[in-house]
Amino acid sequence: MANRIAKLADKIAECGLDAYVASRSPNIRYYTGSIGGSHLIVTPDRDPLLLVSVLDENVTKDQASDCTVDTYTPASLLERFADALRESHSVRVGFDDLPLQLLARIRRRLPEVCFTQNQEEVWQQRMVKDAGEIRLMSEAGRLADVAMQALKDKLAIGATEYELAAEASYAMMREGAEAHSFEFTVGSGPRSAYPHASVTDRKITRGDLIVVDIGATHGGYCSDITRTFVAGKPDGKKATIYDVVLRSHEAAFGEMKPGAGCREVDGVSRRIIEEAGYGTNYTHSLGHGVGLEIHEPPSVSQRSAERLEAGNVVSDEPGVYIHGYGGVRIEDTVLLTPKGPRRLTNFPRELENAVF
Amino acid sequence: MANRIAKLADKIAECGLDAYVASRSPNIRYYTGSIGGSHLIVTPDRDPLLLVSVLDENVTKDQASDCTVDTYTPASLLERFADALRESHSVRVGFDDLPLQLLARIRRRLPEVCFTQNQEEVWQQRMVKDAGEIRLMSEAGRLADVAMQALKDKLAIGATEYELAAEASYAMMREGAEAHSFEFTVGSGPRSAYPHASVTDRKITRGDLIVVDIGATHGGYCSDITRTFVAGKPDGKKATIYDVVLRSHEAAFGEMKPGAGCREVDGVSRRIIEEAGYGTNYTHSLGHGVGLEIHEPPSVSQRSAERLEAGNVVSDEPGVYIHGYGGVRIEDTVLLTPKGPRRLTNFPRELENAVF
Repeated sequence: MANRIAKLADKIAECGLDAYVASRSPNIRYYTGSIGGSHLIVTPDRDPLLLVSVLDENVTKDQASDCTVDTYTPASLLERFADALRESHSVRVGFDDLPLQLLARIRRRLPEVCFTQNQEEVWQQRMVKDAGEIRLMSEAGRLADVAMQALKDKLAIGATEYELAAEASYAMMREGAEAHSFEFTVGSGPRSAYPHASVTDRKITRGDLIVVDIGATHGGYCSDITRTFVAGKPDGKKATIYDVVLRSHEAAFGEMKPGAGCREVDGVSRRIIEEAGYGTNYTHSLGHGVGLEIHEPPSVSQRSAERLEAGNVVSDEPGVYIHGYGGVRIEDTVLLTPKGPRRLTNFPRELENAVF
Repeated sequence: MANRIAKLADKIAECGLDAYVASRSPNIRYYTGSIGGSHLIVTPDRDPLLLVSVLDENVTKDQASDCTVDTYTPASLLERFADALRESHSVRVGFDDLPLQLLARIRRRLPEVCFTQNQEEVWQQRMVKDAGEIRLMSEAGRLADVAMQALKDKLAIGATEYELAAEASYAMMREGAEAHSFEFTVGSGPRSAYPHASVTDRKITRGDLIVVDIGATHGGYCSDITRTFVAGKPDGKKATIYDVVLRSHEAAFGEMKPGAGCREVDGVSRRIIEEAGYGTNYTHSLGHGVGLEIHEPPSVSQRSAERLEAGNVVSDEPGVYIHGYGGVRIEDTVLLTPKGPRRLTNFPRELENAVF
């Protein structure tokens, strides 16, 4: 963690900042290793200071490394926060995010300080995963595969969406996931046309498309996988849509190399779907970064100006959604290695494997 | 939902606001019934307008009631947002929360409009649950009880924390939970002294205290329960701490009546723990509101000026935490009825039931 904080200190100096305040939990975890802690104050010359509420004092002191941990009560937070910035003689302070009212109070308390939201430097660091992070993410990916297999084993006409979600949850947690990395989607029948469908008591019916989007958290790191299943032999239209989405997914995967433009990679996936006549049914971007958070930079979209680099982990998830009919999405979590893309989720993608 | 929006429109008029913008997902769900939607714009005289990204257009149009649904793309959001406020001739606009940069951009776009963060009016409504909400929360509470029993059935020396969490997850989801209402805590041994401990691969050892804090989401509504288990016959100190925390919990429960001051109810629970000599080990407040979110107003704490009223749902969760040794917390989700408190979680609390 010390070298992550040192890099941040260098970056803030380069940006002309005197201090940086990280308050978002995943950032605090990234720089200190602790699941507790409320505000991490980093300056180029002084020891980093992690402010923690009394509630999480013990877990933070036990877990946080390479920083001084100090506690606050609700009554003393503002004073401790201001003192730390005053002691470091900071005038230009960057921060990742702060609640509006806390920011307003700190600005009133320290009128001489210029506070600027700046997430870019932190994301530049977090976007490039190191070997330890890749190990945790590979395991998170494996847990998602295990969960998808467990769910597939219980697919049956009459099963409810939540029963299927339960099988996925059980399998991943029994093998070491500490949590779901997001709220699962098991969207069946017409509900498969909702990209984010959640889970309901709807029963699987013959002919359904079933979009299953799940992920595990392991050591704080997320995985993200989507497969689409088909209840019974698919008719021509379902088979066509499945084939188009799979080809789009595979083509984008092949382009995920260091140096590739995110916009171009999204474009490759989009062109295949457009050419098949479903362009307006592909209502989201190809992918997003994955790490300590389920949605991170870089965005692999038409609006992105970024280029992929080795160490990035992104989702590859084209989809086609037809309102009232159903949808197909096929997604893997993909690591960019210097040699090219490597899937962290590996559940089979072929249509033969999707039919039950 | 129409009558919830009508009430909000009345409240904003009372506050001298011309419009209110709700952007937090649980608020949008509360007022429209939809899990999609990004910004809900409510004015006293016009139809409410729900702006939704193309991604969630279908789910939002299918679920949202009593409002007009309109889509935006990332490029058009700011314009649609500004147009809606211009068309309503709004000058004073309240909002629940907005990302700092979006707020800054909207302020630049509409320099004549005064934007004020105001969450109070929304919380005043959401704090008082109606009959439909209470039905969903009762079921969420039942699912938490089912999960706690399933976990208890698998308690054994050598079981890992995550294996136990898996049993709880499986049981609640198989019976109709759509998600965990928060990241579970299974904190065993010294880790039981962390109020928020998450779940690890630590194995249960004879003599452990094991704090289990879990909850289910059902129809969007949360439940929250904590029980502390003891691996083997507890020694005097463990039995004493358990007894103190249980008495604190029961005494606070008895005080949870409409009209009671939150500060006083917390005080009742705190006094019992202080008198036993563990006051400094009770490092958090007694409870928090529960609803569409796991932490809501009212806060049942020493800093709260609020009074409980019928329809509130709050947690009752005193705890004692001894760093390096362990902790005990006992928590139920409690509904305030006109006649007094009613538990929505009912798993046995007695020490006999906690020992295995």
